[in-house]
Amino acid sequence: VRLYCARMESKGVIFRQLFEPVSSTYTYLLADTETKEAVLIDPVLETVDRDLKLIDELGLKLKLAVNTHCHADHITGTGLLKKKVFGLKSAISKHSGAAADVMLSEGDRVTFGKHHLTVRETPGHTDGCVTYVTDDQSMAFTGDALLIRGCGRTDFQQGCAKRLYESVHKKIFTLPGNCLVYPAHDYKGQMVSTVDEEKKFNPRLTKSVEEFVDIMKNLNLPKPAKIDIAVPANLVCGLHDV
Amino acid sequence: VRLYCARMESKGVIFRQLFEPVSSTYTYLLADTETKEAVLIDPVLETVDRDLKLIDELGLKLKLAVNTHCHADHITGTGLLKKKVFGLKSAISKHSGAAADVMLSEGDRVTFGKHHLTVRETPGHTDGCVTYVTDDQSMAFTGDALLIRGCGRTDFQQGCAKRLYESVHKKIFTLPGNCLVYPAHDYKGQMVSTVDEEKKFNPRLTKSVEEFVDIMKNLNLPKPAKIDIAVPANLVCGLHDV
Ligand SMILES: [Fe+2]
Ligand SMILES: [Fe+2]
Repeated sequence: VRLYCARMESKGVIFRQLFEPVSSTYTYLLADTETKEAVLIDPVLETVDRDLKLIDELGLKLKLAVNTHCHADHITGTGLLKKKVFGLKSAISKHSGAAADVMLSEGDRVTFGKHHLTVRETPGHTDGCVTYVTDDQSMAFTGDALLIRGCGRTDFQQGCAKRLYESVHKKIFTLPGNCLVYPAHDYKGQMVSTVDEEKKFNPRLTKSVEEFVDIMKNLNLPKPAKIDIAVPANLVCGLHDV
Repeated sequence: VRLYCARMESKGVIFRQLFEPVSSTYTYLLADTETKEAVLIDPVLETVDRDLKLIDELGLKLKLAVNTHCHADHITGTGLLKKKVFGLKSAISKHSGAAADVMLSEGDRVTFGKHHLTVRETPGHTDGCVTYVTDDQSMAFTGDALLIRGCGRTDFQQGCAKRLYESVHKKIFTLPGNCLVYPAHDYKGQMVSTVDEEKKFNPRLTKSVEEFVDIMKNLNLPKPAKIDIAVPANLVCGLHDV
């Protein structure tokens, strides 16, 4: 059995990580090698055409576009994708307040071919943040709940540091240590981490909950440049029809 | 056996792809999970500290820093790494004209623990371009010889379009179709491709050699912003002592 990094073919899964540089957002493509059914996690409006070209070249059928949460820093590609791909459905947490075809909650499955992602609710950055975990628990798409050596901010939308801390510790740090952590963003050119690494080296989440709350209270970050257009747009699938 | 994307642990290899956004350069870290010996491909001066921090956190011992060629768009991190890591050796093609501890040529092996990369000479973008191929031929680090749906330019240094075409067709397109292609750069947020994909979809290298030469002749690209400082610096491991 040959093993691949970007295509876990012996597991029957095609996998690609893609990057949108303006918002530093990662989009993830997962597909079943046999049925060719594909799911796209956190697509970005500006890179919809790039993503669709790749999906077409790989011979995949995009069935579902899912978001990890209602983003404040970029406009989701979900709405535009729905206009361009017949039958495509959008999905997001039912706690997000956003509209989508499929409203997800804890334990729900996002299916592509004979594979699926399981939804783990990981609120704290927003109320509707979820982490998508592959069926073999080898990969977790953590959105802004857990970033590489960091985490999403908790000072806007429904942010709550205590809640984020509990989500990460109960829902992500309980995954296998070698489970790969794929975040929604990275600002330092890092692409992946593992649960073990973050449990050891995350400068915020290795602290006590009190220290964490204190750290998050004192970040003094500027307001996200796009929040006033991105959030209202993302509540309706990126301004486009749901 | 569990399979990982970023850590091919069942093969005994730790793997990480890292990005430097100013020059859009990918740096690759490969290490033996048992002996912890590591090699870094195409390190960038500006991200040396990030890379060393990760190497330290993963408990690795960096033995070798190698370049795919003498870069014109960024300064290599090799020299600075040698100053910071005792015993570290640098390596580059003997046809590059650049100084290094180890001068590589066709068929040479770059060893890390019980694993190795094999050197395939792939000149054309420069005289000293090489592609590093993992021992199981599952990954090829192609430098600027083959980019995702593109290739390096051939209008400066010792560029020769005909030679590049032959290199890619004879040395890269002859690898297994599912061999992952990891380039030195990407400008569209793409991280990996495969030999099969590039044989099918590369808009330049799927053409005849005559058409390819013609395409490369008419790109009309501006001179790389950093070439006058980067090339002289990279001839001596990034301005730092070899
Ligand atoms: Fe967010
Ligand atoms: Fe180059």
